[in-house]
Amino acid sequence: MKRGERAARREARRIHRSRSPFFEIPFRQISNAYKPLELLPPEQIETLHNASMRILEEVGLDFLDDEALDLWRQAGAKVDRAKQHVWLDRALVLELVARAPTSFTWLARNAERNLTIGHNSINFSPQGGTVFVANLEFGRRPGRLEDYEKLLKLVHMCNVLHVTGEQMVVPHDVDISARHLRRLQRAITLTDKALMEAAHGRVIPNDSLEMARLVFGDPLPADPVLAGVINVNSPLRYDDRMLGGLITLARAGQITIVTPFILAGAMSPITLASALAQQNAEALAGIALTQLVRPGAPVVYGGFTTNVDMKSGSPSFGTPEGAWAMAVGAQLARRYQLPYRGSGSLNTSKVPDAQAAYETMWTIWPAVLAHTNFVMHAVGWLDSGLTVSYEKFIMDAEVLAMFQHFLGGLNINDDSLALDMIAEVGSGGHHFGTPHTQARFSTEFYQPFLADRLNYETWREAGGLDAARRANLLWQELLVQYEAPSIDPGLTEALDDYVERRRRELKGVELYS
Amino acid sequence: MKRGERAARREARRIHRSRSPFFEIPFRQISNAYKPLELLPPEQIETLHNASMRILEEVGLDFLDDEALDLWRQAGAKVDRAKQHVWLDRALVLELVARAPTSFTWLARNAERNLTIGHNSINFSPQGGTVFVANLEFGRRPGRLEDYEKLLKLVHMCNVLHVTGEQMVVPHDVDISARHLRRLQRAITLTDKALMEAAHGRVIPNDSLEMARLVFGDPLPADPVLAGVINVNSPLRYDDRMLGGLITLARAGQITIVTPFILAGAMSPITLASALAQQNAEALAGIALTQLVRPGAPVVYGGFTTNVDMKSGSPSFGTPEGAWAMAVGAQLARRYQLPYRGSGSLNTSKVPDAQAAYETMWTIWPAVLAHTNFVMHAVGWLDSGLTVSYEKFIMDAEVLAMFQHFLGGLNINDDSLALDMIAEVGSGGHHFGTPHTQARFSTEFYQPFLADRLNYETWREAGGLDAARRANLLWQELLVQYEAPSIDPGLTEALDDYVERRRRELKGVELYS
Repeated sequence: MKRGERAARREARRIHRSRSPFFEIPFRQISNAYKPLELLPPEQIETLHNASMRILEEVGLDFLDDEALDLWRQAGAKVDRAKQHVWLDRALVLELVARAPTSFTWLARNAERNLTIGHNSINFSPQGGTVFVANLEFGRRPGRLEDYEKLLKLVHMCNVLHVTGEQMVVPHDVDISARHLRRLQRAITLTDKALMEAAHGRVIPNDSLEMARLVFGDPLPADPVLAGVINVNSPLRYDDRMLGGLITLARAGQITIVTPFILAGAMSPITLASALAQQNAEALAGIALTQLVRPGAPVVYGGFTTNVDMKSGSPSFGTPEGAWAMAVGAQLARRYQLPYRGSGSLNTSKVPDAQAAYETMWTIWPAVLAHTNFVMHAVGWLDSGLTVSYEKFIMDAEVLAMFQHFLGGLNINDDSLALDMIAEVGSGGHHFGTPHTQARFSTEFYQPFLADRLNYETWREAGGLDAARRANLLWQELLVQYEAPSIDPGLTEALDDYVERRRRELKGVELYS
Repeated sequence: MKRGERAARREARRIHRSRSPFFEIPFRQISNAYKPLELLPPEQIETLHNASMRILEEVGLDFLDDEALDLWRQAGAKVDRAKQHVWLDRALVLELVARAPTSFTWLARNAERNLTIGHNSINFSPQGGTVFVANLEFGRRPGRLEDYEKLLKLVHMCNVLHVTGEQMVVPHDVDISARHLRRLQRAITLTDKALMEAAHGRVIPNDSLEMARLVFGDPLPADPVLAGVINVNSPLRYDDRMLGGLITLARAGQITIVTPFILAGAMSPITLASALAQQNAEALAGIALTQLVRPGAPVVYGGFTTNVDMKSGSPSFGTPEGAWAMAVGAQLARRYQLPYRGSGSLNTSKVPDAQAAYETMWTIWPAVLAHTNFVMHAVGWLDSGLTVSYEKFIMDAEVLAMFQHFLGGLNINDDSLALDMIAEVGSGGHHFGTPHTQARFSTEFYQPFLADRLNYETWREAGGLDAARRANLLWQELLVQYEAPSIDPGLTEALDDYVERRRRELKGVELYS
């Protein structure tokens, strides 16, 4: 190494020693400026489309809810009330789907956190629906309300995450009938990001709407403020729990994320072509129903298709099959000009190891390249979604930060081409000390907050920690540094009152959990 | 879970208990049937092209070799012999580059291992140039010949790897002047895959050619049988070591993989646009020279551009910047209808942990999607390429096997759409036991050999091993099961004789190592 080079490196180290790159990542709406990945040619997308239309027309779906059946009957669909089964003509479905917005704005308590869902926007949400929490401190145990609060604090601090997430972990120490109240109350007060809550039945979403009115005013603004996920009970069935949520949210003009949950080989034929045709039929049926409830209601085309493991019968995540489904799902959603929901950190590993990481990357790479507008479970998953890991949360956040940089930064222009610098340095020199380099020293490249780029000896001297152990140090540090976002004390009080009143009213009531 | 489902799962477990998915992965030429990822629009590729033409014309390059300078002078280029500097007109460069083949066949000792390099073929090579070996048994130590042999055995068994690799690890216990002989002798006898060897100076490649003649006959076949990597000493310099290799291999009609090694911010301006324009100028200059030596010589456009870490001055691998360079490099190579070389398992981690995995995936995803024809370092890297890890080798092999499946399997046709099965199972049923599923039970999905999809309790009972520890068990098992490919005893003897003679002749001779 030349002397000037060594001095430049020393200087670099001096300047940067005190800065923590985690805190320098901005919160911003991410756009994917690159053309979307088109895995299949258009004619194969049309083949899938036609197959799904035949499924809707010839096979039909169960809708296990009287109001949904009434809506379909009034719209002219063929309905068998006894069997709670509906056959949908393609003309009807496509006419309804065309009413859904191509893109919409999702309001947050802090207007700087408002989001666009659609076109080439990309938004990241934390893990949802996990039962256990894991970290290097205590291993694995059932989730508690304190975990929910800690995870919300991390979500708030983590600028690559755009929303609060939905049911991030089950708070087992809270009465089942009050969990939705506690979750949303904490989400409103511990963060100021856009809100999600469970869309199970009619009681839970109605409580969420009431709490949203306390935050956003009554009546609610024209743009939506709340989102819920509607999972299809594949194959080809919407149950009363999900239809209650779908109808309640859509009627209130709030966001439904309609997502068939298909494990090919179990809930659909084993071939991915078939699984995707079925996914498309199921998703479009639910999306059409939202538009029957309220034309123009904001709705997202969701995909959560992967395969079972044929050795164990367990679900597989982070697989080549899941990657196909992620990419082709986006193509299908684009065909109908609908926003698309995919997933991020899916994997089957029990620990935050290399398997957890490479399976996650089999999910997030196709999701990002395919222009997924809303990436659920973008951080934190372990063990097929049974567990949220604090360390995995941090690892995945780094990957998202890398994507934020990747999607934003490659500019080709005279300034970035810097031909004068290439001429000045010439052959065999180095560019450490040029004004062009110096001016961009600390901002040009992605700066990792987790990846260790030290040399082996220095890394050994610093403790020789692997990524999981470094992630452990970081999340603990973040929780120490957390500061709650400002909130009107009147709002806090009104939320407390509402939650307390409803907690008492719902005590012992059996809700769809 | 329903009773029929449970029985189907039991049956699945019974059938598959005895099979090891690692051994079922076929060796085959992989084609990427998907359209290549085009990160930049064509006009920006033209901007990069024009910038690189100006670099060749106005800035020029050092060529530190008399024969190379003579070749350029005879071709009409402007040459400053005292400064060993050459300026290249774009008309000359493009005319020469156009002589290079768009695709070629690379012969292996076993004709079933012959490869196509170019178009949408994709080939994977193991790590090269590492100094240390690491595993969970002994940690890290300098490489030895026994490691080289073990790695060759793993390469031979690993059907997702297509070639033997080049300088997989330094055999420190062999005299420097005999290392190339020992490496190639072992590569020829312990595997039957296509051969690579160091392209340093003229002596080493000439020895490799002599040994190749023992294998393939004298004169050598019309199609190439040997490849070497020509690294550029960026910025803008080809040294005598690399030019000796380039000229020797090209003259013999063998494969040169011409690869600028650029860390943006050090060997080029900090901006990736500039780094890529410089990469393109450097690569095309070397490729043009191969065609001056021998029109039609097989040559590959290589990219190895990433960034320095501005905190430490160390190289960074598995970064968003590296991903840009990988994808745009492929676009540039396509512009000149040249085969493209990228990389696979690049990372900066010191252990086979989550960081190693996610950085690797930041390298291999863009490489595969961009239609990289030859993926160097596709397995085994750790610590910025200083170290080969036996466990990382296995982890990366799983990722390659997943890509082999991903690139081959998504078929959309009547059979795979299986609409009759969707109709037969209907709403709310399951597809475990259908004839369509049963017929594809063991072949439809990718079957992992490393990823663990057991449930938590079963995984715990089985030892609770993470991916690194499971990889450790697998490579040890593979070395036990290794069987050498058949070889004519006369060839073995001829190789032994050649190596022994040259070892004595070269003793004490200083070679470019």
